[in-house]
Amino acid sequence: MLTMQDALIRLTDHWAGHGCLITQPMNTEVGAGTLNPATALRVLGPEPWRVAYVEPSVRPDDARYGDNPNRLQTHTQFQVILKPEPGDAQQLYLGSLEALGIDLRAHDVRFVEDDWASPALGAWGLGWEVWLDGLEITQFTYFQQSGGLTLDPVAVELTYGMERIIMALQGVSHFKDIVYAPGISYGEAFGQAEYEMSRYYLDDADIGTVRELFEAYAAEARRMLDARLPVPAHSYVLKCSQAFNVLDARGAIGTTERARAFARMRRLAHDVAGLWVERRAELEHPLGDVSTRPAEPFDPAAVLYPEIFAPGIFALEIGVEELPPHEVGRTLDHVAAELTAGLEEAGLLGDGHEVHGYATPRRVIVTVQGVEPHEPDTEQVVKGPRLSAAFDAEGNPTKALQGFARGQGVDPAEVGTVSVGGGEYAGLIRPIKGRPAARVLAELLPRIVEGLRAEKNMRWNAPGLSFARPIRWLLALLDEYEVPFEVAGMQAGRITHVHRTATTSDVSIPDAGALVPALRAHGIEPAVERRRSQIVETAGTLAGGAGGAIDFPGERSLVEEIVNLVEEPVPILGSFDDSYLELPEEILTTVMKKHQRYLPVREAGGAGRLLPYFVTVANGDCDHIAVRAGNEAVLRARYEDAAFFFQQDLRSTPEEIGRGLDRLTFTEKLGSMADRAGRIRAIAAGLAERIELGEAEAAVLRRAGELAKFDLASSMVIELSGLSGTMAREYARRAGEDEAVAQALYDMELPRSAGDALPSGVPGALLALADRLDLLAGLFAVGSVPSGSSDPFGLRRAALGLTAILRGTDRLGALTVEDGLAVAARHQPVEVTGEAAAEAARFVARRLEQALLDDGHPIAVVRAVLPHAGSPAYAERAAADLGKLVNDERFLRLTAALQRVLRIVPEGTAAGYDPDLFQEAAERRLHEVFTQVREALPERAPLPEFTEAALPLAHPIDQYFDDVMVMADDPALRANRLGFLASVRDLVGGVLDWPQIA
Amino acid sequence: MLTMQDALIRLTDHWAGHGCLITQPMNTEVGAGTLNPATALRVLGPEPWRVAYVEPSVRPDDARYGDNPNRLQTHTQFQVILKPEPGDAQQLYLGSLEALGIDLRAHDVRFVEDDWASPALGAWGLGWEVWLDGLEITQFTYFQQSGGLTLDPVAVELTYGMERIIMALQGVSHFKDIVYAPGISYGEAFGQAEYEMSRYYLDDADIGTVRELFEAYAAEARRMLDARLPVPAHSYVLKCSQAFNVLDARGAIGTTERARAFARMRRLAHDVAGLWVERRAELEHPLGDVSTRPAEPFDPAAVLYPEIFAPGIFALEIGVEELPPHEVGRTLDHVAAELTAGLEEAGLLGDGHEVHGYATPRRVIVTVQGVEPHEPDTEQVVKGPRLSAAFDAEGNPTKALQGFARGQGVDPAEVGTVSVGGGEYAGLIRPIKGRPAARVLAELLPRIVEGLRAEKNMRWNAPGLSFARPIRWLLALLDEYEVPFEVAGMQAGRITHVHRTATTSDVSIPDAGALVPALRAHGIEPAVERRRSQIVETAGTLAGGAGGAIDFPGERSLVEEIVNLVEEPVPILGSFDDSYLELPEEILTTVMKKHQRYLPVREAGGAGRLLPYFVTVANGDCDHIAVRAGNEAVLRARYEDAAFFFQQDLRSTPEEIGRGLDRLTFTEKLGSMADRAGRIRAIAAGLAERIELGEAEAAVLRRAGELAKFDLASSMVIELSGLSGTMAREYARRAGEDEAVAQALYDMELPRSAGDALPSGVPGALLALADRLDLLAGLFAVGSVPSGSSDPFGLRRAALGLTAILRGTDRLGALTVEDGLAVAARHQPVEVTGEAAAEAARFVARRLEQALLDDGHPIAVVRAVLPHAGSPAYAERAAADLGKLVNDERFLRLTAALQRVLRIVPEGTAAGYDPDLFQEAAERRLHEVFTQVREALPERAPLPEFTEAALPLAHPIDQYFDDVMVMADDPALRANRLGFLASVRDLVGGVLDWPQIA
Repeated sequence: MLTMQDALIRLTDHWAGHGCLITQPMNTEVGAGTLNPATALRVLGPEPWRVAYVEPSVRPDDARYGDNPNRLQTHTQFQVILKPEPGDAQQLYLGSLEALGIDLRAHDVRFVEDDWASPALGAWGLGWEVWLDGLEITQFTYFQQSGGLTLDPVAVELTYGMERIIMALQGVSHFKDIVYAPGISYGEAFGQAEYEMSRYYLDDADIGTVRELFEAYAAEARRMLDARLPVPAHSYVLKCSQAFNVLDARGAIGTTERARAFARMRRLAHDVAGLWVERRAELEHPLGDVSTRPAEPFDPAAVLYPEIFAPGIFALEIGVEELPPHEVGRTLDHVAAELTAGLEEAGLLGDGHEVHGYATPRRVIVTVQGVEPHEPDTEQVVKGPRLSAAFDAEGNPTKALQGFARGQGVDPAEVGTVSVGGGEYAGLIRPIKGRPAARVLAELLPRIVEGLRAEKNMRWNAPGLSFARPIRWLLALLDEYEVPFEVAGMQAGRITHVHRTATTSDVSIPDAGALVPALRAHGIEPAVERRRSQIVETAGTLAGGAGGAIDFPGERSLVEEIVNLVEEPVPILGSFDDSYLELPEEILTTVMKKHQRYLPVREAGGAGRLLPYFVTVANGDCDHIAVRAGNEAVLRARYEDAAFFFQQDLRSTPEEIGRGLDRLTFTEKLGSMADRAGRIRAIAAGLAERIELGEAEAAVLRRAGELAKFDLASSMVIELSGLSGTMAREYARRAGEDEAVAQALYDMELPRSAGDALPSGVPGALLALADRLDLLAGLFAVGSVPSGSSDPFGLRRAALGLTAILRGTDRLGALTVEDGLAVAARHQPVEVTGEAAAEAARFVARRLEQALLDDGHPIAVVRAVLPHAGSPAYAERAAADLGKLVNDERFLRLTAALQRVLRIVPEGTAAGYDPDLFQEAAERRLHEVFTQVREALPERAPLPEFTEAALPLAHPIDQYFDDVMVMADDPALRANRLGFLASVRDLVGGVLDWPQIA
Repeated sequence: MLTMQDALIRLTDHWAGHGCLITQPMNTEVGAGTLNPATALRVLGPEPWRVAYVEPSVRPDDARYGDNPNRLQTHTQFQVILKPEPGDAQQLYLGSLEALGIDLRAHDVRFVEDDWASPALGAWGLGWEVWLDGLEITQFTYFQQSGGLTLDPVAVELTYGMERIIMALQGVSHFKDIVYAPGISYGEAFGQAEYEMSRYYLDDADIGTVRELFEAYAAEARRMLDARLPVPAHSYVLKCSQAFNVLDARGAIGTTERARAFARMRRLAHDVAGLWVERRAELEHPLGDVSTRPAEPFDPAAVLYPEIFAPGIFALEIGVEELPPHEVGRTLDHVAAELTAGLEEAGLLGDGHEVHGYATPRRVIVTVQGVEPHEPDTEQVVKGPRLSAAFDAEGNPTKALQGFARGQGVDPAEVGTVSVGGGEYAGLIRPIKGRPAARVLAELLPRIVEGLRAEKNMRWNAPGLSFARPIRWLLALLDEYEVPFEVAGMQAGRITHVHRTATTSDVSIPDAGALVPALRAHGIEPAVERRRSQIVETAGTLAGGAGGAIDFPGERSLVEEIVNLVEEPVPILGSFDDSYLELPEEILTTVMKKHQRYLPVREAGGAGRLLPYFVTVANGDCDHIAVRAGNEAVLRARYEDAAFFFQQDLRSTPEEIGRGLDRLTFTEKLGSMADRAGRIRAIAAGLAERIELGEAEAAVLRRAGELAKFDLASSMVIELSGLSGTMAREYARRAGEDEAVAQALYDMELPRSAGDALPSGVPGALLALADRLDLLAGLFAVGSVPSGSSDPFGLRRAALGLTAILRGTDRLGALTVEDGLAVAARHQPVEVTGEAAAEAARFVARRLEQALLDDGHPIAVVRAVLPHAGSPAYAERAAADLGKLVNDERFLRLTAALQRVLRIVPEGTAAGYDPDLFQEAAERRLHEVFTQVREALPERAPLPEFTEAALPLAHPIDQYFDDVMVMADDPALRANRLGFLASVRDLVGGVLDWPQIA
């Protein structure tokens, strides 16, 4: 039996053995090991640093009197910092698990994408949660920024959650039952402290006193910054933070206070970081400087390139640390395209060549069969002096020619004649031998690797590279030869890496064709589609064995994710106590799918009632019994928690729950979630005035508005935020609310993502719109605008949802984005300037543009209909129509005619004319038709109708331009003609962005 | 190279391996590991607890910007608690040193008496500093009380000072040079924090803010006590304490504030302790109850006692953990006396028996040769019925006799006649066989062991025992037989324990005579005088080899201490850099003798100039080179410190230094040391009015009074308090003060102990008196009276010093204690009641009594002169005179006569008579002589003069009692006679306490 203290001692020994300084926990309360100066300050700046320590982490909000099996006000982190990241941190980490006695071959250990960001600390990093049989046991992060400063070198941060690890290893289900040391349990050792500190944090801390402490600490931190002492300043920032957390746990923090406190602490933390960096520089970096420096330049010319003599096979493998699943396919597509294009361009793709792509979380492979041995030979024209200046009158070489010949190392007699740009020159034509394929590849491949980019990119200890996760090896074989190149100091070769648990995880590949078979021989299936099939088949069989099935069509995105989470899918069937089936199904499936990536098992057919089974997909061979047991325990704990929250929520009415929205901050300037819910209610009411609403619908809207967002304050949604709306409907139903009200509360969260269902009723749709309009109006007003990959409030999703609802809900078709934003603007607690509203509208328009493109509309069509972005339904309809019309002879005639008008009228020309000044018949004719069309043209007519109505203009316009000199010499005449054409322009200008159709 | 972190890891492993829970440092700043609740709370109450942890201990006052080689604002303690004390904690501890790679056979590891008390925490314990080659590396304490509560069971507390240990092991002389982990030094890892936190504590902390924090913390602690939550309350007490320490380091704490803060923190700490104990009881002691329970009763009758058949040898060894040196001889004397008396009483001491005593810090041995095999046989008289009732008229046994005989199990015919109390009875005389010696011993020895007491006693895990240190084994052999007995569950036997480093430290002794030889065979010299000779001889030789000598007469008390610090003295010569000889000699010798127990080496003759050598006396065989090097390093570090302090002090004038007295608290009610110095000045001036003082002396007194006690605020004396007075003289001289002033400042601290020199001049003597009178008057006034072994202010020493000065300084002979106290009382900041002053005077009288007894005066004599305790010089003279007079025929005649007077006069009888009522000649005669004597008697005459003068009374008194019926029937007559005798009584009553002479 590994006791908790043994585990801490073993981890200490392990990391000390890998060069870590072992230091002590911070001697003031901290919420996490990251805050200890041994991390928070030491990750900054260019000095190397390796450290490991235990950190009892205090989270007043997690206080539960010791009653909750998994939640403690003080839990134990084991924290490791490796700076610079050493390149093999995953391997070192796995070694630490072995040091804990975990048999890596028996268990399913996985690195599951999990990015970490603390805006309060100005800190973020990319990395993983490490899973042991489905249990998150460690946070593994490549630390990118801290205190608002970019980190160079990048550090690896490991944070082990000790209680969880030990509970799993000891097989106990309450932290108090952990054997802490021989003969003494966690509860016996720390139970009283857990209870009493919970009492303090939740019930007894004196709010006035702690508030004073917060002020005193903040002031002292600021004074220490002024005194240029970052160490005591940091200590006071930590005390500040703890005081804040205590106030928060006591429920004493209002929205404004929270926002101000956060801003203050963030500012202090940033200043501490900056000062620390300055001070270390002044001390001349006592520990040295290991910041990133450019790699030694690699000289491709100094390398001997292998040659092949017949079309060969090329294989490229880019080895990476576990990619986020959605980056796997994306990366493969990119690499395959770049490689193909590069080879194509060099003329190295022979007839009948084949390109194959493979990808797993740890590798992207592209193989090309039929690579030509060399580029085609070509010629180089070397231009000498003009022919006229090359030879003198006697036909002898001039000095110029002689000089040229000498420069080229040839005899003047060898110089011939070349034509360049129509001129005749003395010159040479040199045959150029095509470079061998290996050399072409050696120049192409570094560019491909260096060009890899993901949605979110990180840096690691590889100068010049930036990608989703570190690139760790490069395999490049042309037939049996290594293609020699180097990227960021990393040399390509013939070594691949199979499962980390393999006896020898480094495998040498004899030739390009052997790579994929070799991986398969080690259990790794590099082909995405084959992994998918394996999962579907085996999981289906397992589900069938349990009397059920899996709804594969319904779980498509989950399956895609799983496919890219493993290299060797090993589906394992697990079960859970069927008493949990009494919980709402969404809770169960959310936990299974979102949190655990388990496939739910349902009654026959796969879409029926949920059964108490699941399929998890382990990565590679393992002890199925152990892995099943581990995953079942994780699920049980999560369901226990969920059941607890569910029961807790059911003790209150929706109104009672909703009162908690007060305590949830939305943003500093826009108030609490309660404020936001109130605005949504008001905005929805405002929107409702603009459409026809039945009395019943109005009542539903009113009641649902009163309850809007209430479930955000429920325990369940605080825990599982993906269940917002779902829980609102559930709790509303159980509280006896009208079904339509419950449904509207559910609907108002729709759509959650592109392609998701839309609100099923108008009240819900109005609330959903109001929700998104409030977000857009408010956040654009305060300047919280998405930038790059940062979109913390999900404004892109909100804008897409907004347009999707407007496009998909007939009865709301009359609402425009601009109108909606105007309504929303009136309810904001801040001024929404015209410019801000316009910017928000443009933002929505860009999302609509993207959505229409994604729907398959040609770009010209989409751009042409964008003037209608404010009415997405209309724009969509127009795009569809226009898609057809662009092949319509009559529409094209009309368009061509109108373009002539639009082209000639200078921008800024006002419409308006005097018919009496018309001189030509064509003028008068066009005016006549124009007048008729203008009267006949229905407002906002669908495009086909417009075409019909406007078509009579086509011929008169053509005639007009044939007969009339618009730009007449007489200024008055010219002005009158342009004013007239401007009127035509205005008649049709709003219909489409005509120039886009050209 | 053992790095600091390796050392922490190894200690952790070691103690985890011995059942300790490994816990984390406290997550709020603490000044010592003791304050961590894992110690402070867990030592309370009956639950078992074993814990070990690292504790970075924050001492703002020790902040030195990282400059001082040995002093840090945060140093690292490793703390261990073993509760209940396991009986072999020393052995476990030594194992931990071995775990650190320390070769116990090569080094000199010693347990040197060091008791720990924190009045602020209501905590104390007895134990040792552990020395490694002279360096204090660990505090080892048997924790007796905490939070004002007596601990049961007693816990062992070990506190390792890690920086010191590692500096010694790594041989570095600045903490920053410690190799903390491979490739990184302590300075590199923590240097910046050390500097910045020093800045914070010494210069930059905002006093107002920290004062607010103190208040907030104290208030919150109190609230948590009210809420019955000891854990958060304790945490706030710790924060309080840290805030206080910060204020103190910033120099922001005045006397009154300090006293109030201490009282407040003490109160809180006590309440936390009490509440913790209550709460644990309410929780029903989750970890169990191991409080002390009486040992199983031992039934001496159930044991088979060995018998010897000729006079034998008995050996008793009481094995203890290292006793304080001054307890060694004391304990031996007690045991030898008790054993001898017990055997004597039992008649077991044969002719020519010999008793030998041996003692070392770890054992007390008494051997008795010539123990008789049995007690002498005796007879028991069994009294039956009165002879008259035993036989009827016929001479036949009555029923009474028959019953008696039946009861005694004999035939009535066997009953004889016995005389009891003058009556004749039927009865029996039964012969009683003397018990075997072993049985007598088995009953005697437990009483001796249980009766052991020291000046300061502790409890350990042995119910019923209480002694200076734990008793760990008992050896009792009568010839070759074990004497079977048991004390507190510990059985006596034949096993002794030799050096802990011996291959087998348990040695079985075949017979009583073999014990001492066996110990000697293991290198242990049990005879005190032999150890003394070994030390004197070898140390002298070593000093001689260095061209010097040791002043053995001058170092007598140090030699006595060393003799009782080791079992196998191994003197080793060490040296120090002679540049340190530039420091005042007292500094050097104080460090050597008081701190290190080194014998200083002087120029030839031994009392000359100091040489740069010393002799340390190791305990047992060791690697001399290593031990010398270690001790030399310790001395160097201490001299470095001393030189630093000396230079620092010399930068200020005495006045400037003296200003620091403001910051030193004396007591809460009696103000600061500055206040006290002012009082001493005033009291001395008041005393000076009562004697003749020359003008020059008056000037010296005035100036010395101005500087009184100034050196208490010097860095040197704060560090080495034993140098007060010495440094005053040194600094005063160097500041150009008059030599007499400098000497008076030195004198005023004399005598430091019984037998020490007295002030050499009157000004110094007056200041010395004033010092002690201030202590006594002030402290008795506020009730800080010594009790039992507790005398924190050294009032006993003060009283002894007071009487010594008055006895030894002729010109002050006229001053009385009462007068002095009255002067002192007038200057106290509190009221000194008459009762308090009287109590103080009585306290002084008791000290004088003891001193006179110690001087060899018989107890009767001392008691007889005690009425003069207020004039110690007179009392001493009287005692000396009386000592002679008690053999003087004439004095005895006088005394006998006076006693007759004193005996007959009832207490309370007032003097006074009417001579006209005298009836008898003897009456008149006595009256006549009385009148003459009364007139002739000089006041306060020395006893011989008094005797001469009073002797004429003797005969008339005797005559009076022969002839006069004092208790006449006539009440008036009787009253007159008693009144007359009372007048006689009063005439002589003040001269001596006559009844004591009887």
